[in-house]
Amino acid sequence: MNTTLFLKSRLAAVVLAGTLFLFSNLHAQNKEDSLFIRQIFDAALTKGDCYRVLEHLCTQIGPRLSGSKGAEDAVVYTRSVMEDYGFDKVFLQDVMVPHWERGNISKASFVSGKQKHNLQICALGSSIATPAAGISGKVIEVKNFDELEKLGTEKVKDKIVFFNRPFDDRHIHTFRAYGGAVDQRGSGASKASKLGAVAVIVRSMTHLIDDFPHAGNMHYDPQYPKIPAAAVSTKGAELLSEILKKDPELLLTYTINCTTHPDAPSHNVVGQLNGNTNPDEYIVVGGHLDAWDLAQGAHDDGAGCVQSMEALRLLQMLGYKPKHSLRAVMFMNEENGLRGGLKYAELAKEKGEVHRFAIESDRGGFTPRGFSIDHGGDTLAFFQRFSKLIAPYGLTDLVQGGSGADIGPLRKHGTICVGYIPDSQRYFDYHHAGNDNFDAINKRELEMGAASMAVLIYLADKYWQ
Amino acid sequence: MNTTLFLKSRLAAVVLAGTLFLFSNLHAQNKEDSLFIRQIFDAALTKGDCYRVLEHLCTQIGPRLSGSKGAEDAVVYTRSVMEDYGFDKVFLQDVMVPHWERGNISKASFVSGKQKHNLQICALGSSIATPAAGISGKVIEVKNFDELEKLGTEKVKDKIVFFNRPFDDRHIHTFRAYGGAVDQRGSGASKASKLGAVAVIVRSMTHLIDDFPHAGNMHYDPQYPKIPAAAVSTKGAELLSEILKKDPELLLTYTINCTTHPDAPSHNVVGQLNGNTNPDEYIVVGGHLDAWDLAQGAHDDGAGCVQSMEALRLLQMLGYKPKHSLRAVMFMNEENGLRGGLKYAELAKEKGEVHRFAIESDRGGFTPRGFSIDHGGDTLAFFQRFSKLIAPYGLTDLVQGGSGADIGPLRKHGTICVGYIPDSQRYFDYHHAGNDNFDAINKRELEMGAASMAVLIYLADKYWQ
Repeated sequence: MNTTLFLKSRLAAVVLAGTLFLFSNLHAQNKEDSLFIRQIFDAALTKGDCYRVLEHLCTQIGPRLSGSKGAEDAVVYTRSVMEDYGFDKVFLQDVMVPHWERGNISKASFVSGKQKHNLQICALGSSIATPAAGISGKVIEVKNFDELEKLGTEKVKDKIVFFNRPFDDRHIHTFRAYGGAVDQRGSGASKASKLGAVAVIVRSMTHLIDDFPHAGNMHYDPQYPKIPAAAVSTKGAELLSEILKKDPELLLTYTINCTTHPDAPSHNVVGQLNGNTNPDEYIVVGGHLDAWDLAQGAHDDGAGCVQSMEALRLLQMLGYKPKHSLRAVMFMNEENGLRGGLKYAELAKEKGEVHRFAIESDRGGFTPRGFSIDHGGDTLAFFQRFSKLIAPYGLTDLVQGGSGADIGPLRKHGTICVGYIPDSQRYFDYHHAGNDNFDAINKRELEMGAASMAVLIYLADKYWQ
Repeated sequence: MNTTLFLKSRLAAVVLAGTLFLFSNLHAQNKEDSLFIRQIFDAALTKGDCYRVLEHLCTQIGPRLSGSKGAEDAVVYTRSVMEDYGFDKVFLQDVMVPHWERGNISKASFVSGKQKHNLQICALGSSIATPAAGISGKVIEVKNFDELEKLGTEKVKDKIVFFNRPFDDRHIHTFRAYGGAVDQRGSGASKASKLGAVAVIVRSMTHLIDDFPHAGNMHYDPQYPKIPAAAVSTKGAELLSEILKKDPELLLTYTINCTTHPDAPSHNVVGQLNGNTNPDEYIVVGGHLDAWDLAQGAHDDGAGCVQSMEALRLLQMLGYKPKHSLRAVMFMNEENGLRGGLKYAELAKEKGEVHRFAIESDRGGFTPRGFSIDHGGDTLAFFQRFSKLIAPYGLTDLVQGGSGADIGPLRKHGTICVGYIPDSQRYFDYHHAGNDNFDAINKRELEMGAASMAVLIYLADKYWQ
């Protein structure tokens, strides 16, 4: 044996020994993690509390748009839930929120020939009211802003613009279909107002053809006069479109009596488990406590709130000692202002609180599919190394992508943000509509979501350097 | 350059060239497959017909247990659907099936103290009736057969045995929870009869605590006297168990008036697209047409039937020319006899029809998760090589496991059998219960299942050597 060979073989032995050590260490660690993840899911599925809490939030409190009594009741209730869980600290953060109220009138109809047709509509959030007698006009149907612009002032002036571009059903992930249609709801009014329209009516944001109008917020461009904006059910949109083909001169009248009040005082609700080695560094898990006023806000986002509290409760129940301080945050006002999310990040910055991670659940309480991480590179790779550990629980999607609106402001301060991804097929059946009620929740799906989030917190807390 | 090195580099060049050719060929093929799979999903989601067909099957025909008028109506209807689709061949296969009828009485009650409690029950399939005045007895609650055996004849004789082992909620895949509990339903009556019991009552096979009794078949061991067998809702089971703790002597009475008639003539329904290069070799895709009589059989297994027809329709619509002959089979009598599946395999053998693959959908019309292949080794590897192609559609589970009851008999003749796996969380909310109706179906989830099956057929047809 020559020296070089000898040295090489020594090196090989050392490398081999190191590798074996690494493997056995990794193996032991993986086994420990695997067992703990199993415990988290077992606890969620057999000793879960989030379904009970969501039932209360939905059926005893219900609608809770920012500024409403429901919203403040939800603040009081979720605070009491986390106090009952014995979290180390439970506190409120003051935040001023928009206060818009729908009022009690949402009606629309048109006459064609001798027949009167009623449409199911609802005011879009932030819209102004129509005159008390309603607003009337001929209807001009468009599929997008380009089409509208091409029509120009001449054809749009004094009309009611009807935005009727449907969801593109080909998207497997339904949020992409939503993303491809929601500009009509958000900016349609001002685009139409620019050309002299008197009001807009927007096809509801859903795949389904049914008679629920779907609420959701809209924004006025300050350059143009504010005009009323309402959503119409997809069934109504189909009917209106069909009859417009035969009778393009038909007259549509609709009435909404919403009001924008001065901003109102409200709160984020925060529950905390103190960190053991890095108590001044935080991992946040959250959802938003406000919900549209047409239903109980079960999937959007009661589910995310109760899952966030449950994630911390599960870790606490299993005796896990976190390195970082863990916070469950019920953000206020995601739906029509994001003030809670902005305030949380502002206060974190003021107090110099370092936020390592934030995880949001705001895509409904459906069966788990994975997580969306808002960074690529090493950060994505950090999470992807756990893919085999979590795949047995249906968590197979570990992708780069958006996280959540409420935690978005933290991202600007360097926080790594993650969105929990449940299955998306049914989300827009309920989103912002009158049927987003507790009975649309499956207990196991909800619980598995809470467990999934607890698992991600555990892995991030334990392994992030 | 010495000769050896020269030869080595020549070899390397050849290998490299070959590899490049293989890669580019594979790449082109992958691209072609990827585009075609996209087309299948696009067609299913935008030009799908299976939701309409299922609506008819559920709401116009409804319950269709073997031997019933509903079952024969379903035969006529699905035959006409496939004829309307213009499949190359549509035919029936005669098969004699069990003919059991529930009757019109399902009632149960017990008195404890001065209070009478009613229970929601249903006769289990194949059960004998009680006397017209009902059967009464003290109740002995057990969790499993071991516990029952230990009690012995002395404690069981003349009693009604109450099997009350719940689902184990820790299983992520709910079929495992079902598999861990269903022995009580299948064999409980004879196990109890052996020890002298007069009847059994079995906790319904579901995770939920609600008031739906879940039907399902049971079998009598010919060694022991037949005794009546009924399922009780989980809510009823919880109540009975709770009150038994305080009042173990309470008297339960229940009445069912089911009848077993002589076997009845019925049919499998088969639709075929002829193969182009191997017309005498078959790929089967199927579900079972019979369904329990308490509801419309939407998930079990109307979904599987309409998805099977749709899978062939999608391939036909896209102009795909299959190598093998493709068959959509509506199997009769999966629920209480499997006669259709047995007959299909028997006829295939008689006629010398080589069946390469069979795919069954009988786990509900929920969002796609993958496929379960009943072989390991090369066969499993054959499917797993397509994993990246199908993962974008949520088809991430490609595992070895059971396929489907109806195609099981083909397996004995060498057919590779595959089960379509949808998400399982909600399946046992509806399975065999009064709420398995069309309104429990989500259109997109159903359509994506049909597309998933079409994709598997396409890949198996094109690539299996």
